[in-house]
Amino acid sequence: MRFHVFGAICALGIAGQASAAEDVDALVGAMLGDTPIIGDLQILTDQIGGRVTGSPSSKAAVDWARARFEQAGVSAKIEPFEMPSQWQELAVSATVSGDHTFTPRVIAKPFSAGADQLSAPLLDAGPGTKDDFARLGDAARNAWVLIESPLLTDEIGLNGLFAEYSDAAHSEALAFAAGAAGVVFMSSRPNNLLYRLPLLSGKGRLPLLLMERESATRAQRLLRDGKSLSLTASIEVDSGYAYQSANVIGEIRGSSRPDEIVLIGAHLDSHDLGTGALDNGANASMMIDIARQITRLGLKPARTIRFALWNGEEQGLVGSWRYTQQHQDELDNHVMAASFDIGTGRILGFFTGG
Amino acid sequence: MRFHVFGAICALGIAGQASAAEDVDALVGAMLGDTPIIGDLQILTDQIGGRVTGSPSSKAAVDWARARFEQAGVSAKIEPFEMPSQWQELAVSATVSGDHTFTPRVIAKPFSAGADQLSAPLLDAGPGTKDDFARLGDAARNAWVLIESPLLTDEIGLNGLFAEYSDAAHSEALAFAAGAAGVVFMSSRPNNLLYRLPLLSGKGRLPLLLMERESATRAQRLLRDGKSLSLTASIEVDSGYAYQSANVIGEIRGSSRPDEIVLIGAHLDSHDLGTGALDNGANASMMIDIARQITRLGLKPARTIRFALWNGEEQGLVGSWRYTQQHQDELDNHVMAASFDIGTGRILGFFTGG
Repeated sequence: MRFHVFGAICALGIAGQASAAEDVDALVGAMLGDTPIIGDLQILTDQIGGRVTGSPSSKAAVDWARARFEQAGVSAKIEPFEMPSQWQELAVSATVSGDHTFTPRVIAKPFSAGADQLSAPLLDAGPGTKDDFARLGDAARNAWVLIESPLLTDEIGLNGLFAEYSDAAHSEALAFAAGAAGVVFMSSRPNNLLYRLPLLSGKGRLPLLLMERESATRAQRLLRDGKSLSLTASIEVDSGYAYQSANVIGEIRGSSRPDEIVLIGAHLDSHDLGTGALDNGANASMMIDIARQITRLGLKPARTIRFALWNGEEQGLVGSWRYTQQHQDELDNHVMAASFDIGTGRILGFFTGG
Repeated sequence: MRFHVFGAICALGIAGQASAAEDVDALVGAMLGDTPIIGDLQILTDQIGGRVTGSPSSKAAVDWARARFEQAGVSAKIEPFEMPSQWQELAVSATVSGDHTFTPRVIAKPFSAGADQLSAPLLDAGPGTKDDFARLGDAARNAWVLIESPLLTDEIGLNGLFAEYSDAAHSEALAFAAGAAGVVFMSSRPNNLLYRLPLLSGKGRLPLLLMERESATRAQRLLRDGKSLSLTASIEVDSGYAYQSANVIGEIRGSSRPDEIVLIGAHLDSHDLGTGALDNGANASMMIDIARQITRLGLKPARTIRFALWNGEEQGLVGSWRYTQQHQDELDNHVMAASFDIGTGRILGFFTGG
């Protein structure tokens, strides 16, 4: 976590003066020394676990994080906000039948509609472009359309990931327009791995599945070999209503310029298929540890530092957006804001936003 | 598949004479050229799929293989035999609860007993040695014991795999002796991967689960941190009765020494979690292709060549053992026998048996 720590501390913007530079050295040194950061991360992942915004574990994470800031001697508050639309997967299953029968591993794409033993022909929709749907024509109506994804390798990286997100949203809109019964996305990761694509288009309009790559490519080969297949799926979700979540905001008041706010944050929420260690427990724990070490070392930053742990990030950066609404009167006082995401290690890039 | 093909053809034992050497060259050349071997493998994996001995797809594979030999102009027969004990997984689920709750991905170990919402304390039994069970003492009685496995890497290879098999059998026997309610084995493969351990000890004596490594290590860390956990599991299996299976035996009669039999074989069956391409569809398809190419090239081997596709291999080499019983009167006529298993590529080693 060495380089991420250094980047986060630089983001505090307190370097550039002789004493501030020494403070930064002391802070980096402390954080790379014997800190409870790994223990914190272990509580967040092993004990609290996956923490989808709106779940009981998400609430547990909020309470834990506030307590952890306060145990570190940093004042912290819970700032509730409304999430527009609940979505959580409860149970999902699917069977491919017809000329051949098998039971692939599937999950629902976030904001999928529910389905109760929805049985329909399964059609090869290639990569799911406009041309693919034009080729399918009326056949797509009331059918499950199988959308191919290129294999996502480490070399392709984030660009490939974001292309997959937007391609999926595009295919989903085309499938909806074509009157498809539902969409089956092929996992872009090998070895049976499933993951949650983000929401980038319409909510709850169609049943949307993600199928592990080996079974999806098998179905695709069979279809391309002229075999006739159907898919029967059940998708049980808890969805559709607004609900309360909260950000956790820790604060160390500035010693000489308290009205100037430096904000650093990380999202506290995760999806539910794993325990959210790299995305984003590592950075949430780092926020707590930076606050803890500043207090422990007795550093007195000139400006006010806010440590924000967001929720609703995986649903479209909702928590951080709510912060800007709730704090709009003091936005002009924010001299800097940075949010840390996607793992540990060297900082690989920046996303800038207004 | 280059080196495997060459190895298999050498195993026919027809090299050493000038014309035989030319025949081998012709055969290797033909098999590395344009053959239906990949198409055959694709039917066996994509269309027939996982083919546990005793399943409908196992029967389909037997019929398909016999037909494929005969289409290649090689006489083939189905030789039925009795399998001692059916075991197939129907449905398995488990939830960890107590101080923390999560739902790990699990399967049953082959020949696991069934269980219906069996709820019991989950205990850390370390690597499951005699000392571990001595340490647990009476606590193991009526508890689920979690057995740690070292990570199995490519570098550790087959030795590690076989050590895992025998360690699991040893731990299982100790758990049974200790009166445990059931055993939870930690997957030795990372990234959520599950697989079927073989049967090496008592059948159906205990409920036996394999849990994906990430959740199993999470449970282990929580237990070692003093947390109290229970496991509730349901294991639905179809098991316990003798049933019929069959080997498929193709044969090309020898031209000058027909009573001398050279046998080459490969198991046709697979487990059910995948489609059995490397273990062992690749070699089953190779047996069919060797037979096909000998016929197509008009080769006249001196000795009789038998091509055996075994079933019941994953249940303990049952099919090949049944062959030796059914053919005991002609065993002395077998001048050589070799069975090909575990994938494609260079031959990495030999297991010898009497």
